[in-house]
Amino acid sequence: MNNNLYTLTEKIDKDLLENNLSETEKEELAKEIKEFLPKNSIVLAQINPTSGDIKGNAKKALKWIEWANRLELSAIIFPEMYLIGYPIGDFIDRFPIIVEENIEWLQALATKTTKTKVLMGFVEFNKSKQGKKYYNSIAVMSNGKIEKTIRKTLLPNYAEFNDYRHFEPAKTDSKNRIIDIADKKAGIIVCEDGWNDFDFFEKNLYETDPVECVVNEQHPDYLINCSSSITRAKKEQLKHNMLSFAAKKHKTPIVYVNQVGSGECVSFEGASRVYDENGNLTYMAQSYAEQFFIVDVNDKDGKINPLPKGLEKTLTEQKAFSLDHEPDLERTYLTIIQSIKDYFKKTGFKRAVLGLSGGLDSTVSAVLLSDALGAKNVFGISMPSKITSQESKNDAKELANNLGINFTEIPIKEMCDTTREKFDNLFSTIEKDWDVRYKESFTNDNIQARSRGMILWGVANEFQACLPIATSDKSELYMGYATINGDMSGGFAPLADVSKTKLFALARWLNKNREQKNAIPESIIAKRPGAELAINPKTGKPLLAEEALMPYEFLDEVIWRVENLQQTIGDMLQEEFLYEKHMRKENSPVSKEQKLEWLQKFFRRMSTSLYKWTIMPPSPIVDARSINKAEYKQPIISSKINYHKTSYEQKLKELG
Amino acid sequence: MNNNLYTLTEKIDKDLLENNLSETEKEELAKEIKEFLPKNSIVLAQINPTSGDIKGNAKKALKWIEWANRLELSAIIFPEMYLIGYPIGDFIDRFPIIVEENIEWLQALATKTTKTKVLMGFVEFNKSKQGKKYYNSIAVMSNGKIEKTIRKTLLPNYAEFNDYRHFEPAKTDSKNRIIDIADKKAGIIVCEDGWNDFDFFEKNLYETDPVECVVNEQHPDYLINCSSSITRAKKEQLKHNMLSFAAKKHKTPIVYVNQVGSGECVSFEGASRVYDENGNLTYMAQSYAEQFFIVDVNDKDGKINPLPKGLEKTLTEQKAFSLDHEPDLERTYLTIIQSIKDYFKKTGFKRAVLGLSGGLDSTVSAVLLSDALGAKNVFGISMPSKITSQESKNDAKELANNLGINFTEIPIKEMCDTTREKFDNLFSTIEKDWDVRYKESFTNDNIQARSRGMILWGVANEFQACLPIATSDKSELYMGYATINGDMSGGFAPLADVSKTKLFALARWLNKNREQKNAIPESIIAKRPGAELAINPKTGKPLLAEEALMPYEFLDEVIWRVENLQQTIGDMLQEEFLYEKHMRKENSPVSKEQKLEWLQKFFRRMSTSLYKWTIMPPSPIVDARSINKAEYKQPIISSKINYHKTSYEQKLKELG
Repeated sequence: MNNNLYTLTEKIDKDLLENNLSETEKEELAKEIKEFLPKNSIVLAQINPTSGDIKGNAKKALKWIEWANRLELSAIIFPEMYLIGYPIGDFIDRFPIIVEENIEWLQALATKTTKTKVLMGFVEFNKSKQGKKYYNSIAVMSNGKIEKTIRKTLLPNYAEFNDYRHFEPAKTDSKNRIIDIADKKAGIIVCEDGWNDFDFFEKNLYETDPVECVVNEQHPDYLINCSSSITRAKKEQLKHNMLSFAAKKHKTPIVYVNQVGSGECVSFEGASRVYDENGNLTYMAQSYAEQFFIVDVNDKDGKINPLPKGLEKTLTEQKAFSLDHEPDLERTYLTIIQSIKDYFKKTGFKRAVLGLSGGLDSTVSAVLLSDALGAKNVFGISMPSKITSQESKNDAKELANNLGINFTEIPIKEMCDTTREKFDNLFSTIEKDWDVRYKESFTNDNIQARSRGMILWGVANEFQACLPIATSDKSELYMGYATINGDMSGGFAPLADVSKTKLFALARWLNKNREQKNAIPESIIAKRPGAELAINPKTGKPLLAEEALMPYEFLDEVIWRVENLQQTIGDMLQEEFLYEKHMRKENSPVSKEQKLEWLQKFFRRMSTSLYKWTIMPPSPIVDARSINKAEYKQPIISSKINYHKTSYEQKLKELG
Repeated sequence: MNNNLYTLTEKIDKDLLENNLSETEKEELAKEIKEFLPKNSIVLAQINPTSGDIKGNAKKALKWIEWANRLELSAIIFPEMYLIGYPIGDFIDRFPIIVEENIEWLQALATKTTKTKVLMGFVEFNKSKQGKKYYNSIAVMSNGKIEKTIRKTLLPNYAEFNDYRHFEPAKTDSKNRIIDIADKKAGIIVCEDGWNDFDFFEKNLYETDPVECVVNEQHPDYLINCSSSITRAKKEQLKHNMLSFAAKKHKTPIVYVNQVGSGECVSFEGASRVYDENGNLTYMAQSYAEQFFIVDVNDKDGKINPLPKGLEKTLTEQKAFSLDHEPDLERTYLTIIQSIKDYFKKTGFKRAVLGLSGGLDSTVSAVLLSDALGAKNVFGISMPSKITSQESKNDAKELANNLGINFTEIPIKEMCDTTREKFDNLFSTIEKDWDVRYKESFTNDNIQARSRGMILWGVANEFQACLPIATSDKSELYMGYATINGDMSGGFAPLADVSKTKLFALARWLNKNREQKNAIPESIIAKRPGAELAINPKTGKPLLAEEALMPYEFLDEVIWRVENLQQTIGDMLQEEFLYEKHMRKENSPVSKEQKLEWLQKFFRRMSTSLYKWTIMPPSPIVDARSINKAEYKQPIISSKINYHKTSYEQKLKELG
């Protein structure tokens, strides 16, 4: 492995980021690097575009292309749809001007190419009388011209993917997919084109495998896959195994180039790589960082940057629900940090304001925001009501101190009292016409949460480039345990795809792994979560979340089973949960009735939470599956469904 | 035409709705009807399912099937995906139990069939090793059994449609599509299967035309299209012309069965129909009503129920932007009324509370809610601030009186004052750390709107089955002229796809066409819209919306051009707007600079409103195109895009 090369190319990364080198310095650096460059090297442009900002993306690409030209590399490979940005949504349907612009910018970029081949993803018009308006294409450019374009065949349309919605699937056309790079034949495939191996997958989504077609019909020396492949829990396991399998099966090296950076909900982790013809990993770029990553397909001993810490473990472990979230924590942290950074940067915001309750959700949110935006750009506000404990107030303050973020405390008593007084009059009036007042309502709880929302949005209205933060977590969103216009309202929701048990693990991980140790007060992690919006009449103390809901360990396993195994109540009754195992060992087993009650409560509460999911602010997708509306959509009007399967006999009986 | 028959079948409709006949009465009615029944009649089951409520849908279907059996009809035809409900979203992916249930309920229903054929849409598992999990299928049942299933081939995946996301496209298989109904051969197609005629459309989305295949290969006596086809402005024009064209071209009658009712955003208008082999319309069912609609394919003189008033005009008119909204007003009214009714019913809500400002949006909302839910189920609350004029207060009260809805007034002064006081302290504190306070902010405007939101959500928390209403209209949503957690917050947003100029027309239409005339005080329609949240320093009076934005007539034409023509700023500069024409005739022409300024303002404001669109509550899609998130998705991170096209030369220059 060529260590000098990678020490030197770090300077290119820095220059691309900060533009810190003069023309002379660039030439000198190039000269130095060339001494270490294997012949016929190519560079993987692991780069972060902004959706729709074609001019910005083009100008950025030019700097990368100029470095590739300067080093006289054989080729520079950009990710899928780099020029227009991925994902682009329905934007291209309503504003075809954007697609016209991406064609013209591509043509303009082509004039800057030399003998170094440039491969770049863009959106192409489908000029035929049939089919969808566009193709998802890769342009091959060199010597001042666009040589040809290669079109994507397999168009994913599940979960967060909507390719088939916008693009016409292209014929495989294996001959057209071959290009010469320094006298070698490279076969080009585009992302999903490489995910349909008939031997690797038990069930295939598509009828053709473009990889097989290209290999069998054209015998390329190696394959290049231009991707925009999204990070999800456990996806690395699948991706590594599949790419390695395909390279070995076809005895053909695979070069995989991935986008890095975040859209509003989806995140790309980079980690571009090369597998040799035996399926061995020979190169891997950094994760969650832009990188000008030079590789030599023939070098068996390339540069392998590590994956996020612990992630390798997910390659073999975590096939069942586990409270050992450890192997996924660094990836989770990096995904959310990148999401916050990119969402703020790409929408033009700089500052965040959030309520600090002294609870786990707002605490972890504050740490992540501080790391992503810088402590001075975060304002934490403690907004105690009469139910808020002194301990919570202290915890909030201590946390802010530890992080060095801005902090103030502002009691909401007067706001709540004034509102409550208004409500008393109003409700008596309404009651005369509507004889349907609840005996017990959440009105008081919500006045507190909404007064806090009012304050945070007020700050965002008054100070420039500032977004308020919604701190709801995934476990609570499933339960609808979040207040509309209260804690679930904001411009961004960093934790909406992180379950509560994982949040506890993440808090401990942050205390151990951030440069500043133990920023989160131990008391925050130690206490049992509660919204501090109401008093539990049974205990006389603030109501705990687990009293209102069910044990988080149990709840999170239900969520995991719904998302990953698509299980029903019946399925779940037949298996022992981790929480049940624990309680059994402690000689306090969970009764069958209790389990059924919790499961029914879960589905009942989930069903009435569907509306809340649709009005959640943007939030990063992190888990293997999510309820993020960019990924999952269930009609709100399905909220009355019974998730219990009935027997066929019962059905006949119902029909009479 | 057989008038007696339709007078009598109205009693069936009533029985299906209210279950108001005893077994004996049913038998007597059946006997009476049979006297007027043409031989070989079939019935179009124009019916309203609830997505996911399979048991409910099955039990409802049984009553319809029993009526068909009782009348010894040849067949009863249900719409596409009736049993599981359409649209179903990703629900079937995450909860496959729902699909298992729909199969079992189908089997149970089959046991109730006689020699009367039953055609019913359902979701079928794809058991092959390849492709997506499901098929969108029609079951053919008779004599106690499922005879066969027919699968949809063309799967729409644009705008509000997501069929390809969930279903595997089936081979056309023309032979399998033929069934015998009373010794005639009927060819079955499913919705989009009938929308790809190569002669009718200039550009086709798909490579095959299943209608052509079935007709050319099997020569059926007639075609049956089982549909769930959504109402949109001007879609009736397209649908009528296309169906008529296809029937004539193939010299084959077409029976078209459509769903009726609303999902959370999409609405089905019914209007099931028959075209004869010359393309003439011979039958049309009612619009926006369930109907047990008996037809005889051979009768050239069938029953034609009228379309919504004026809608026929759209068949030939309205190809350019026009302020004559008249031809679409009854359809608009019926679509929104049905949406409110069904959303409330299908989610289990009964009551609505809304703020009555005396302005147009809340006024029209109140009328529609009153008509949909009943006056006694609507509570209008006037919530004046210090800016609210006496006139507005009077108007609100008069409107409520006219409608007979519940009404009260509750000033928000104290809430605003308490909040303002809190904010003064808080902002001074924050200002010390963040030296980026706006000189002018919308904080005060928003305190008022959010205090009102707080009150409405409070009422919803305190009284059973009550939803607060978001009153934002389409023009203002494009401009982001709506307050987060304020007027754009609620459980349902009836007007989010109605532009302001159309709202004015709708208000006048309501005054003229509702049973109770002139419920809307003329002063509300006459005054120029304004949020009454701030004073215009230039006039000393409450700021008018058109002062803050641009003339509504101009704004609505921009929206129309963006949605329907996909025009850019450059395109729009080259055409004369209706508003420009009016002003030119009044000798006060709009300058080129003014027009450019408005257009730039439009795109600038639209770009920063994208986030707001994503957190809007459910709202009915009404127009030809909308910004409803069920239909249109643009990445929020694309908010910095310039909608001005630059020249190729300019691009080369930018690249340097």
